Amino acid sequence: MNEIIDLDENSGVIICQAGCVLENIDKKLEGSGLMVPLDLGAKGSCHIGGNVATNAGGLRLLRYGNLHGNVLGLEVVKANGEVIDCLSTLKKDNTGFHLKHLFIGSEGTLGFITKVSLQCPPRARSINVAFLGLQNFDKVLKTFRKAKEDLCEILSAFEVIDSTSMEFAKETVGITSPIGDYPYYLLIETSGSNPEHDADKLYKFLDLVLVKHLALNGTLATEPAKVNAIWAIREKIPEGFKHSSVLCYDFSLPLSKYFDLVEDMRNHMGSLAKKVFGFGHLGDGNLHLQIEVNEMSKEVRDHVEPNVFERVKQMNGSISAEHGMGFLKANYLSFANPPSKVEMMRNLKSMLDPKGILNPYKVFPWTYS
Amino acid sequence: MNEIIDLDENSGVIICQAGCVLENIDKKLEGSGLMVPLDLGAKGSCHIGGNVATNAGGLRLLRYGNLHGNVLGLEVVKANGEVIDCLSTLKKDNTGFHLKHLFIGSEGTLGFITKVSLQCPPRARSINVAFLGLQNFDKVLKTFRKAKEDLCEILSAFEVIDSTSMEFAKETVGITSPIGDYPYYLLIETSGSNPEHDADKLYKFLDLVLVKHLALNGTLATEPAKVNAIWAIREKIPEGFKHSSVLCYDFSLPLSKYFDLVEDMRNHMGSLAKKVFGFGHLGDGNLHLQIEVNEMSKEVRDHVEPNVFERVKQMNGSISAEHGMGFLKANYLSFANPPSKVEMMRNLKSMLDPKGILNPYKVFPWTYS
Repeated sequence: MNEIIDLDENSGVIICQAGCVLENIDKKLEGSGLMVPLDLGAKGSCHIGGNVATNAGGLRLLRYGNLHGNVLGLEVVKANGEVIDCLSTLKKDNTGFHLKHLFIGSEGTLGFITKVSLQCPPRARSINVAFLGLQNFDKVLKTFRKAKEDLCEILSAFEVIDSTSMEFAKETVGITSPIGDYPYYLLIETSGSNPEHDADKLYKFLDLVLVKHLALNGTLATEPAKVNAIWAIREKIPEGFKHSSVLCYDFSLPLSKYFDLVEDMRNHMGSLAKKVFGFGHLGDGNLHLQIEVNEMSKEVRDHVEPNVFERVKQMNGSISAEHGMGFLKANYLSFANPPSKVEMMRNLKSMLDPKGILNPYKVFPWTYS
Repeated sequence: MNEIIDLDENSGVIICQAGCVLENIDKKLEGSGLMVPLDLGAKGSCHIGGNVATNAGGLRLLRYGNLHGNVLGLEVVKANGEVIDCLSTLKKDNTGFHLKHLFIGSEGTLGFITKVSLQCPPRARSINVAFLGLQNFDKVLKTFRKAKEDLCEILSAFEVIDSTSMEFAKETVGITSPIGDYPYYLLIETSGSNPEHDADKLYKFLDLVLVKHLALNGTLATEPAKVNAIWAIREKIPEGFKHSSVLCYDFSLPLSKYFDLVEDMRNHMGSLAKKVFGFGHLGDGNLHLQIEVNEMSKEVRDHVEPNVFERVKQMNGSISAEHGMGFLKANYLSFANPPSKVEMMRNLKSMLDPKGILNPYKVFPWTYS
């Protein structure tokens, strides 16, 4: 189940079996000047079938789009053993319902993905990163809009970190900001085809945000080692979770309310929490909210949940941006979706897996067998 | 049904009613430096609800992606009058099945789309166009790969026209090539945020394809009037259909076989056709095949169909890239899809519209009432 079946270098389309590790597909593409349009921390171990089944988002969705846009075809085995052949390699195909999308993000509960065809963009020739310190969230949003305008087609990541996240990282894994302490930090990445143009855009952008006092301080990296060093600041924050008791959440929120949730939960938790902090893929509205506590107890959990989910819902956010419903959130299916959607999901599940044998107890809180 | 409900300038997300005309949405976005991620000839009259229901592709899918990637949410009315609220504005939301995709491209047969939320990219600040003449299709493909590598993030259209298309355009609407006569022509458009960088990329690209003898001749336009004049060459070809009898087809084909179909059909038609020619969005594998005949007769039609569809199928192409199944191709549903997919479509139709009252006789050749 881990074979690459075909690579069409002209159209930039790869077909592979579902068990291929994401990084291995990317390595296969490297020689053709292509890349997988999906990148995430687990790329060295995750399988493309699982990525598709969970509709993985990752770091560069902002630039390369989501899997509904990038998956051209799927082969899926239904609960009754029947194979659904949607393994198209065509970018435009309107010959009936677009069935493959039902399986993207269904967490394996509607069918078992066995083959995937993906459209693959050209591999970036230059990757640059800026790291900025900012005074308040209003300036974070203004900087985001400016980045979309001026870095536009080369903007590939826009990550935010609040000061408490940085304090947490310092205490747990010894990471510090390379530019001093600020209320908010931004990691802005560009990926493009022309190193000279890309660096010029990013230098000018950095100049502008400093001159306009959107950012208080900033640094820029164009060499791979320095780029990696800056990314390590962002990526090592979750490593601190091993050294402390942290409740971790993965939400989507409208940008105007993105950090309100962190502040609200800080007030709500009071002395029950050591730290409440947030970081995430701001470019996609995706916030990782973290609540560090002295000890994980039922009292703490009950104080957080479902309260935090209710707040997210009130803000028109999503209680699971990337991580899906799985076991842990299956009981929140009816909370996160209006009755008409839940009924349609139930009908689809009954239609495709009437005996409930596919990934049971996931997504749905009811059993079907 | 033609109101714009909300525009979030921070996240670049617009919510509108389904009856909004595509061009009006784009005008609304202009002031915020945003654009609709979809552009097609009919933009002045087509409705966004129809665009979504037919999964419209258009001219710049190559750059901005398809509607499955760009539609963030839908409100849909089911056949029983129940409203399905999938009107999310979030880029990442994995809280259950991704139901909205069922309605994208279902041609109104599963539900009636009433509201749409769309993610909108930054508006391009510079649009440039190159027009090239090439000797053979192998060089067309090599030029495409080079364009993807070197123009990469700013490549927004890659259109091909064969010499017979140009002859037809000359005879019917008086259009001629501005660079002399060649077997193949390419119209390559770039859209970007930095006019200087964009022009530099395109000039260097043009130099390179001429020096490497991929193209025999070429011209470049950076001023809007000249850009429009070059686009007019491509866009006016279909106007010739009003002055002649032409059978028009909209196929997707693997790039390696893209023009084989034109040659095959030329041989197949023999003296029954005046001209067989092809042009289209090569960047998306989308070929518009045209067969000009002296007179439209049953004999001619029977000679073309289903033969041409069988050829497309043999080449692993799609018999309807953009135009859907509608009335005209409904009878080909089982031809274009394997039995397992057709059965799943029937089951979905029965589930969502058991009385068959939604857009009857479209997509499905059977009636349900």
